[in-house]
Amino acid sequence: MKTIKVGIAGLGRLGKVHANNIAFKIPNATLTAACSIVPAELEYAKNELDVTDLYTDYREMLEKADIDAVAIVTTSSEHCWQIEAALDAGKHVFTDKPLGVDLEQCKLAEAAVERHPDQVFFLGFMRRYDSSYAYAKKKIQEGAIGKPYMVKAIGIDPEALVEGSIKFAATSGGIFIDMAIHDIDLMRWFLEDEPTEVYALGATFKHPEFQAVGDDETAVATYKFKNGGIGVIHVGRTAPHGYHVETEIIGTEGSIRISPVPEKNLAMLYNSNGVVTECVEGFPERFAAAYLAEMQEFVDCICENRKPGVSVYDGTKSTAIGFGTTEAWKSGKVVAL
Amino acid sequence: MKTIKVGIAGLGRLGKVHANNIAFKIPNATLTAACSIVPAELEYAKNELDVTDLYTDYREMLEKADIDAVAIVTTSSEHCWQIEAALDAGKHVFTDKPLGVDLEQCKLAEAAVERHPDQVFFLGFMRRYDSSYAYAKKKIQEGAIGKPYMVKAIGIDPEALVEGSIKFAATSGGIFIDMAIHDIDLMRWFLEDEPTEVYALGATFKHPEFQAVGDDETAVATYKFKNGGIGVIHVGRTAPHGYHVETEIIGTEGSIRISPVPEKNLAMLYNSNGVVTECVEGFPERFAAAYLAEMQEFVDCICENRKPGVSVYDGTKSTAIGFGTTEAWKSGKVVAL
Amino acid sequence: MKTIKVGIAGLGRLGKVHANNIAFKIPNATLTAACSIVPAELEYAKNELDVTDLYTDYREMLEKADIDAVAIVTTSSEHCWQIEAALDAGKHVFTDKPLGVDLEQCKLAEAAVERHPDQVFFLGFMRRYDSSYAYAKKKIQEGAIGKPYMVKAIGIDPEALVEGSIKFAATSGGIFIDMAIHDIDLMRWFLEDEPTEVYALGATFKHPEFQAVGDDETAVATYKFKNGGIGVIHVGRTAPHGYHVETEIIGTEGSIRISPVPEKNLAMLYNSNGVVTECVEGFPERFAAAYLAEMQEFVDCICENRKPGVSVYDGTKSTAIGFGTTEAWKSGKVVAL
Amino acid sequence: MKTIKVGIAGLGRLGKVHANNIAFKIPNATLTAACSIVPAELEYAKNELDVTDLYTDYREMLEKADIDAVAIVTTSSEHCWQIEAALDAGKHVFTDKPLGVDLEQCKLAEAAVERHPDQVFFLGFMRRYDSSYAYAKKKIQEGAIGKPYMVKAIGIDPEALVEGSIKFAATSGGIFIDMAIHDIDLMRWFLEDEPTEVYALGATFKHPEFQAVGDDETAVATYKFKNGGIGVIHVGRTAPHGYHVETEIIGTEGSIRISPVPEKNLAMLYNSNGVVTECVEGFPERFAAAYLAEMQEFVDCICENRKPGVSVYDGTKSTAIGFGTTEAWKSGKVVAL
Repeated sequence: MKTIKVGIAGLGRLGKVHANNIAFKIPNATLTAACSIVPAELEYAKNELDVTDLYTDYREMLEKADIDAVAIVTTSSEHCWQIEAALDAGKHVFTDKPLGVDLEQCKLAEAAVERHPDQVFFLGFMRRYDSSYAYAKKKIQEGAIGKPYMVKAIGIDPEALVEGSIKFAATSGGIFIDMAIHDIDLMRWFLEDEPTEVYALGATFKHPEFQAVGDDETAVATYKFKNGGIGVIHVGRTAPHGYHVETEIIGTEGSIRISPVPEKNLAMLYNSNGVVTECVEGFPERFAAAYLAEMQEFVDCICENRKPGVSVYDGTKSTAIGFGTTEAWKSGKVVAL
Repeated sequence: MKTIKVGIAGLGRLGKVHANNIAFKIPNATLTAACSIVPAELEYAKNELDVTDLYTDYREMLEKADIDAVAIVTTSSEHCWQIEAALDAGKHVFTDKPLGVDLEQCKLAEAAVERHPDQVFFLGFMRRYDSSYAYAKKKIQEGAIGKPYMVKAIGIDPEALVEGSIKFAATSGGIFIDMAIHDIDLMRWFLEDEPTEVYALGATFKHPEFQAVGDDETAVATYKFKNGGIGVIHVGRTAPHGYHVETEIIGTEGSIRISPVPEKNLAMLYNSNGVVTECVEGFPERFAAAYLAEMQEFVDCICENRKPGVSVYDGTKSTAIGFGTTEAWKSGKVVAL
Repeated sequence: MKTIKVGIAGLGRLGKVHANNIAFKIPNATLTAACSIVPAELEYAKNELDVTDLYTDYREMLEKADIDAVAIVTTSSEHCWQIEAALDAGKHVFTDKPLGVDLEQCKLAEAAVERHPDQVFFLGFMRRYDSSYAYAKKKIQEGAIGKPYMVKAIGIDPEALVEGSIKFAATSGGIFIDMAIHDIDLMRWFLEDEPTEVYALGATFKHPEFQAVGDDETAVATYKFKNGGIGVIHVGRTAPHGYHVETEIIGTEGSIRISPVPEKNLAMLYNSNGVVTECVEGFPERFAAAYLAEMQEFVDCICENRKPGVSVYDGTKSTAIGFGTTEAWKSGKVVAL
Repeated sequence: MKTIKVGIAGLGRLGKVHANNIAFKIPNATLTAACSIVPAELEYAKNELDVTDLYTDYREMLEKADIDAVAIVTTSSEHCWQIEAALDAGKHVFTDKPLGVDLEQCKLAEAAVERHPDQVFFLGFMRRYDSSYAYAKKKIQEGAIGKPYMVKAIGIDPEALVEGSIKFAATSGGIFIDMAIHDIDLMRWFLEDEPTEVYALGATFKHPEFQAVGDDETAVATYKFKNGGIGVIHVGRTAPHGYHVETEIIGTEGSIRISPVPEKNLAMLYNSNGVVTECVEGFPERFAAAYLAEMQEFVDCICENRKPGVSVYDGTKSTAIGFGTTEAWKSGKVVAL
């Protein structure tokens, strides 16, 4: 059994998730190097992950570390040049979403991927690897709902975490860039089609801080697809019950709905409030298994010389649609994509 | 269209439900007389139900009132002689459950029914007429779960109403007589078989007042049926979430479960507790439509000269099983039925 | 107790529902007259409803029948002049939705209502009287979800009935006029606000017959409200599982969701398919109790000299929004309302 | 970070699960040795798990292998002597349930554990480590349901796997020994009390092969606990919808129900059958995460010099209760425990 040596770049909240998965939970991978500009993160790598080959300079890691692959979990704006540099250095690349923060960057990443067709490039749209979403896709491929023609997606962050969103609002690119990228990807993935037009609306009723910096608390976008399909994305930041991710795929013969009740687990409480289901608190809880599954798939793609189901173009397209949606939201007009 | 003239005996809580149904909600029935020993109940009949032919003496109503049928909703201990008197007076009879409070009484009622084979006798096991239970029965008859061989039934009164149960505990006959009669009937109805043996256990953890008078707060009985089937009944009085009636029928090819969440309606609340379903508050709310449906069926049986699906023998048998269960519970021994 | 004498106009499918409710299920009402141009419907009134005062001419019923009120359940295009005539004849008026088929008609009805402020005018938006919707409204009024700012509504007819929709498609006014009126009303009711802008999209993937006559099989409309709220309506005609009506109201402190599983009753089947909940087959089944409740409220409003919660202006506005939505859908443009 | 070296004994279906978890998914453990009398299992260890220190003799592994701990996943009848040998050899011990197949064996294991108080002994009641069960326990400890006094447990194997159960029926010890051990443990764990009396009934309606060898297809046991609590266990082998494990814990202030719908994942299908939730197919799928969590806890107990929450006495008691239940089932009598 071949073992893939991976270096990680970035050890923030999600970086730690990926690093632990690589280090401890993927049979055919080891975490052999780590890079961060934050000293505490390198300490973490040493103490918690047993990684001793540590870097503060990303390019230096690419040059010197004994690695087959890199996992990029840095700030979004750094993704694309790091992808390019890693691919050019002969490494396989996993990068977290989004691909980049503008289309120019994305195009550079695309070119790099095209220059290195034999290396694996993997974009972290982990929802595709969540067991419920993967099941939905499989069912659809088996014909369970006929021809899918509509996707309705909801993604609402918990009110409990809204302070963080408020702080980040001025620089996040707005609610659609910040929150809709997974739903945009899912919509394209399930419909196997591209949106051509978008209309969007935002609203803020609870935290005026969002509107103060030109953002919104919640928003809805409606998409028209090339073949006539329809997409509806509803994002928000103030779910009192927890982290609400829900998706519906409607086809000619049926539909699949994932999680109208974003249950924490299989337990229900019967008490004086009624029958109560507690909900997941955030994406790390909801998608813990999906983060592991996508990284496993990345490593397996390398070992088995396969291409992953998600491509660099999925990244560019999602980003482009995110910008188009943002334009629609800001302008109040229907925007062609 | 023939219209059946009905006299009601007893206008307590449930009596009012039946009286309103007869008076206003059943096309082919009218409420033409009422009998009660409680003056306020006769006032109610006059003012709210427009009934002017009023009696304080049951036998007098039978003699003088212009009625085709009587609906008996009096104290349980009065049911049987009133059934007998009404049948002997040539009236069709609806009586609320239980048939009687001892087997001797039940036998008198049986004899009266047998003497008057052309009159309709209807015993108010309204759950059989609830849309969910009727659906379950129909599905089973259509073969949806193969041969049914186990019934598990839960009936728990709401903690909100426990004060009433405590007051009534010393004279109720005990938790099984008081609460299990519907579940006993359902068990027999779904299995189409008779239990031959019962074992039962009670417990009291919240309201010692029950044990102080020899009763229990909750109890479980297990039944062995003649053909090898199994029944489990769980009754209680302290559901914090509301009125919990749940039934499961298990067959060789599948099972049917009615209401693990005893929802008040179709709405769910998403709030800081999680996802919350409020529950029904009591049997009048849960079975409102069933009370109407059973009375409609009683009237239709008269009009169409049909026999109802539930018989006087169902009443005797349920009562007998209730006594056997009580003996098992009190003695801690397996009791033959 | 006062009894309201009602004459019914129209005894089609829904007319029969209303007529039976008035005749048999409302204590303080009697059905004393009926009008229809369909002979079989008058036969039905005579034979099934015991109504002998029968008319083929609506104005004649208004003149001659002994009635306090009329229930108008005729073809939509006849509603407004019949409302006007009845009010001018001194009758209280219940009319089924929609108020009228164009705004001019609606304005005539408004004027008639204004001319007769002492008579009850009731518009049949029965969903407001459904126990789940009424519960949601009450909960919202009690503050359970804070300030409501978004309504998402789904209304999909069952595939089993699609043949009827196809036949009717050429003359129905299009999917939004045909299907969205209740959801438009609910949206306004829950948000207590008026939409100012709409964008809409339609699609047809299963039955090209719809597009052949300029209609669509499914459609989505997004509304911007005056105070910044958002509405999303999704209508369709091909739900394989049954009649799917679902509504979500989102507020600053929580949300209420009605019926993501449009269950037929409280039973679940466990079989080789998994755990299966059968669904309601159509609006008569789903809203049977609401049709009765609204008619009871109409009659009670007359008896108690009250105004109903729904007004003639709700009818005009819903119709106007329906037309605006249709324009948005046909044009592909954002339409001001 | 200390790393625990583990040798595994037994690499059947569940052995493979544990071996993979130790080898690849637990940061502070490595799988360094494996023992099996089945050549294919040793091949598996070499090829799939990269383990080269292989044994066919268990005692030899204990003597020669470089291991801190052993994981025993052999045939139930071998557990106890292997536990004893490992503890006496100075190794920490994880053993799968049941502790032993008779009480004498269990007592030997108890004595060995008592001889080595500084070594970790861990019994694989993995359900305690399932996120839903652990959540229920935590909620109960926090007082969410007051004082728990009743546990109702259901464990039904899928009909799809019934052939295996039939083959194994003659030698399995009967349905309670074979299937109820986890539920017995959960009942004791949630009630923190011991049963003193049991009554049990079995039935066979679908596969007479079970009765042919003195076994049953389904069975129910009712337990009376020392402090007055009640337990009900329902086991079976023919669930058409999948693997049905459901547990309810009832307390004075509320109850917790785990999984009336044993959902495969968060997706629901809406199709012509209604709304359908597919179910888990077996215990490896349902409890995959729990198997990992318990092994992680075993390793952490070693690293942190802690005792696990489940003890050797839990094993003896569960086994004893299993035998008592079997006696009750076979005899039809109430049996003192």
